[in-house]
Order: sequence, then structure tokens, then C-alpha cells
Amino acid sequence: MTSHKKILIIDTGGTFNKVYNPISGELEIDKTSSAIKKIASKWLCKFEVINIIGKDSLEITQKDRDIFLNSIKETQHSHIIVIHGTDTMDISASYLAENKLAKYIVFTGAMVPYSIDTVEATANLASAYGYLQALDNHGIYIAMNGAMGSYDMVLKDRVKGCFRIL
Amino acid sequence: MTSHKKILIIDTGGTFNKVYNPISGELEIDKTSSAIKKIASKWLCKFEVINIIGKDSLEITQKDRDIFLNSIKETQHSHIIVIHGTDTMDISASYLAENKLAKYIVFTGAMVPYSIDTVEATANLASAYGYLQALDNHGIYIAMNGAMGSYDMVLKDRVKGCFRIL
Amino acid sequence: MTSHKKILIIDTGGTFNKVYNPISGELEIDKTSSAIKKIASKWLCKFEVINIIGKDSLEITQKDRDIFLNSIKETQHSHIIVIHGTDTMDISASYLAENKLAKYIVFTGAMVPYSIDTVEATANLASAYGYLQALDNHGIYIAMNGAMGSYDMVLKDRVKGCFRIL
Amino acid sequence: MTSHKKILIIDTGGTFNKVYNPISGELEIDKTSSAIKKIASKWLCKFEVINIIGKDSLEITQKDRDIFLNSIKETQHSHIIVIHGTDTMDISASYLAENKLAKYIVFTGAMVPYSIDTVEATANLASAYGYLQALDNHGIYIAMNGAMGSYDMVLKDRVKGCFRIL
Repeated sequence: MTSHKKILIIDTGGTFNKVYNPISGELEIDKTSSAIKKIASKWLCKFEVINIIGKDSLEITQKDRDIFLNSIKETQHSHIIVIHGTDTMDISASYLAENKLAKYIVFTGAMVPYSIDTVEATANLASAYGYLQALDNHGIYIAMNGAMGSYDMVLKDRVKGCFRIL
Repeated sequence: MTSHKKILIIDTGGTFNKVYNPISGELEIDKTSSAIKKIASKWLCKFEVINIIGKDSLEITQKDRDIFLNSIKETQHSHIIVIHGTDTMDISASYLAENKLAKYIVFTGAMVPYSIDTVEATANLASAYGYLQALDNHGIYIAMNGAMGSYDMVLKDRVKGCFRIL
Repeated sequence: MTSHKKILIIDTGGTFNKVYNPISGELEIDKTSSAIKKIASKWLCKFEVINIIGKDSLEITQKDRDIFLNSIKETQHSHIIVIHGTDTMDISASYLAENKLAKYIVFTGAMVPYSIDTVEATANLASAYGYLQALDNHGIYIAMNGAMGSYDMVLKDRVKGCFRIL
Repeated sequence: MTSHKKILIIDTGGTFNKVYNPISGELEIDKTSSAIKKIASKWLCKFEVINIIGKDSLEITQKDRDIFLNSIKETQHSHIIVIHGTDTMDISASYLAENKLAKYIVFTGAMVPYSIDTVEATANLASAYGYLQALDNHGIYIAMNGAMGSYDMVLKDRVKGCFRIL
């Protein structure tokens, strides 16, 4: 149990990665995973990251989810963190669950962009990382706002603006 | 495994809690756990915290460790995070290990105060939190800088200034 | 010249005051001047502030400008900083200039919200404050991005995303 | 008055420039003016900076002050900001004043290092910058915590931990 697992982070975009564009005045998704790289640099560790889709989760299509599923099937990693927008995190997680993969997969993301306030995004990613290190059953999980468990047990509370255990 | 554990945070001081005093020009240990409270507020969750000792870990005495051990024996919580200075984290962890407690205890802390840069302290605490949620064997563990495992497997590298797996 | 002037800050909204709403996922204008209050608290000084209009400057109407002009005519303060959105800062400044007020008025604002990155907004406000303390001719001025001078000499460069001296 | 002055920043060290060293656990003076460079980058402007002395102001010697005076006499700039530690800012300012230079010189610094909290250091520097742009009498000035004026009128309140007008 104390052996250290190699973890792959698949970064699909979402609020976690939004940055302010001073020219347009809009928040845009950074597709270079710079938030994850900054966390690794400050946490004094290294992450293996791939960046796909790069969308707000409301814009993710079924075609995107197929690309996403393939990237998970193709990687040799069995321990995977998925950074995903919060609005359809449950849909992508359900879709993976239907495919009964022999992997340990933890979804996370953020209610507030890392670029606006570092704490929630950092805590979500790090808690997913810690959870994944100790998990001993294959499955699809969500770790958000200190709530973590099977993907169908951790839900977004759209009124309070955070995730909670069912 | 997906049931959510109640976690107690025992905050003993250390770099994690240091704040700048503009009058003295020195870093001092905040004994009100304000860093932990800020993380909880921004992570959109709640922590149960007790604050004891309140020292730089180089100044922790055997008497402090006895107080610390008693506080762990007395609490009804079986899942505990200990915030501790990094220099003697291994000594306090070994001392608890000798006492063969039927508990799940994860030590963490920070190389950089939360008040100076939020990311490392937040990531250490959140990874300890995630790790503790999924652990299924009693024991004493350390979670620092993305390295986590049994307390005797995760060591401070005093040259590089971070913790690493042995 | 070294006598300290009493300064009024009139906060009309704009990017300076935008904050992230995690429920809507949008940036919204905070109408409580909390950014200015935070700067005063950290700068260890006090500001006198009134908050009017509370709009993105693209949405400011002529009626808003009349309210704005009246608030300047009515106040007994002769030294005034105006926080204003950057897109129509020049229009509101010109409108005041036409009214030939016997006052010292410095417009400022921000390209990046204080809530996203504190530095530019803080520097703009503080430079306006310093400039206003030493000014000795009535007039309408702009202080942005280290450029400061008469309102018709400091312009927004919409390609580079900053203000520059003409 | 609205013509833009070229300003030289002479950075002599002090709290403004302190950074945390995670290996030693101490705050040290950064001698590369990285705080000033970050402010320029985020303020979207450029500064001309020279770095001398690099000390906590309690450690500045008369020999250091002579080097400092010479650097001011030798530069062709007439408009100069001096970043200086707060404890002996008044002594260095008095020493310059005795030398009756035909220059405009504004001292500033910080009660809290830029690396710990950006706002006060940024506001002090930017207010000095704005003040210097509009000054029209030669002299030695201090701009700290929103108080600005002749060097003998702006004093450090060692109890409250900030500068105030006499």
C-alpha cells in the first residue's frame, strides 16, 4: 500500500484552467496546462500530463468523450487523474464507468480558476492525488471540495456552488 | 471504501503556520490555525481542528510529544492529520509508531509558509486528506510534496528542500 | 507642496472591480468597492470612497455621466480620483474637461481585475494617489500603467492592452 | 507638468526585497530586484533600475551611504526613486539632504516584503512614481503608506508599524 503509484493527469479543460484575457476582457481556457505545471513547481514534485479537448465542460460533445475514452484505453497508466469542467463531470464519469475499465480514475476540477484563486484548484488536485495513491479498487471516482468517493456519490450542488457527498 | 471518514486535524505549529510580523520583521507561528481555516473556507468544506504545542519543530520537547500522544489517545477520532514542522516530523512520527495505536494518522506540513505562498501548504494538506480517506491499514504515514507512504519511507531531503520517497 | 491633500475616490465600476462569481462562472462588478478597501487595509492607510454607477464602462450612458458630473460638482473635495472602466475612460474624462471644473481629477482603472491579480490595479490607484498629491494645476488627468498626464495625452492601446503616453 | 519624466530606481535592499529561503527557513534580501521587475511586468511598463548595497537598513554603514551618494551624483537622471529599508530611511534621506543635490528624490520601501504580500510594496513604489512625476521642486521626499512629503515630514511609527505625516 505504501508503494508509490505513477499517476497520469489527463487535462480536458474546464474552469480549473481558465485565465483572464485582458484584451478581450474574457476568461479563456488555457490549453497548455500551465496551472498544473505551476502547482507541480510549487509543490516541489513532477506530474506527467497530457492535454486534450481543452473545453468548458458545457461544450464537450460525445465525439470529445470518445477521444477521451480512447486516450484512457491507450495509455499504459492504470492510475489517472482527469481534470474536467464541473458541469458535465458526472456525464463523462458515467460514460467511463459504462466501459468497465480495469483502472483507477479520479475526476477533479475547480469551481474557481487556479489563476483567480490558487487554493481550491490546488486542494482539489492534491486531494485527488492523495486519494488515488491509496485507492485499492478499480473504479471511477470524484474528488472535489474535500468530498471524495465513487463518481455516483459525489455531486455538484448548483445552488451552493460546490460538490458534496450524496 | 467510498464511505466518507470524519477527520480530525491536530495542528502542532511548524513552517506551515508561520506569518510575518511587520513590527518585529520576523516570521512567527500563528497559534490560531488561521491557515487551515482559510484553506477550508476556500476549499468550500469544513475541518475539525485542534491546536496544540504551537512550535517550530526544532523546539519540540519530549514533554510536548507526550502531550501530543495523549491528545491522540484521548480523541475518539480514528482518522487524524497532524500538521507538524518538517525538521522533526520523523521523530514525532516514530514516537507515535512505537505506541502501536489502532488509528490512521497522516503527518504533513510545509517547506514554505501558507502565508508566503499558498500552494505547497494547501497541496500537502489536501493530499494528506485524500490519502487518509482511502487508507485501509492502521499506521503512521507522511504526505509531503506529492510523496506519501509509511512514515519511515518518506524522508526530508535537506539539500533539495523537499520530501521524497526513500 | 508637502502639505497632504484630502482625496476623495469616486468608484464608478469597471474591470478594476470585477470579481468571479463561481455560480454563474462570470466576472461581475463588485459595487461595494471591496478592492479599494483591501488596498487601503494592506497599504495601511484610509481612503474616503463613494461608489456610483457600478458598470462596465461600455455600458455607461450619458445619463450616468450626468450623475457622475453632479457628484463631482457637489462634493467639497477638490482632489478626486475616479476609478473607471478603461474602454470609455477618455469619453468621461473629456466630458468633465468640457465643464471646466476648478478641481484636480485623476482617472484610473485596471486592465486586469484586482481580484485576479492585485498588482496592476494597486499600482494604478497608488500612482494616481501620488500624482494627485503633487499636482499643482487644475485639470483632468489619467494615470494608468505608469503613464500619467493630461487626459488627452494618455491613451489606451487596444492592441497591446495597456495605456501609453501619446 | 504633463511631460513624462524619465525615472531611475536605485534599489538598496530592505524589507521590500526580502524573500523566503526554504532551506534556511529565513527571509533574505534578494539582490536582483526581482520584486521591482515583477511589478513592472504586471504594471505593463518598464523601469530603469540599478541595485546597490543590498542590505537590511539596520546594517547600512556610513561607507554604504557614501557609495549611495556617489551613485546619485554620477547618474544623469534628475528624477530618482530610492528603495530603502524602513528603519534608517530617515538617516539616508537626511544625509542626501545635507548634500543639497539639484535632484528630485523620493524614498520608499515596505513594511511587508513584496514576496509575502504584493499590495503594500506595490502601492508604495507606484505612489512614489506618481508623486515624482508631478513634483516641481528639487528635494528629498518620502512616500510610504499613502503618506508623502518632504523627508523630514514623513516618519515611521514603530508602534503601529507604518509611516505617517508628522
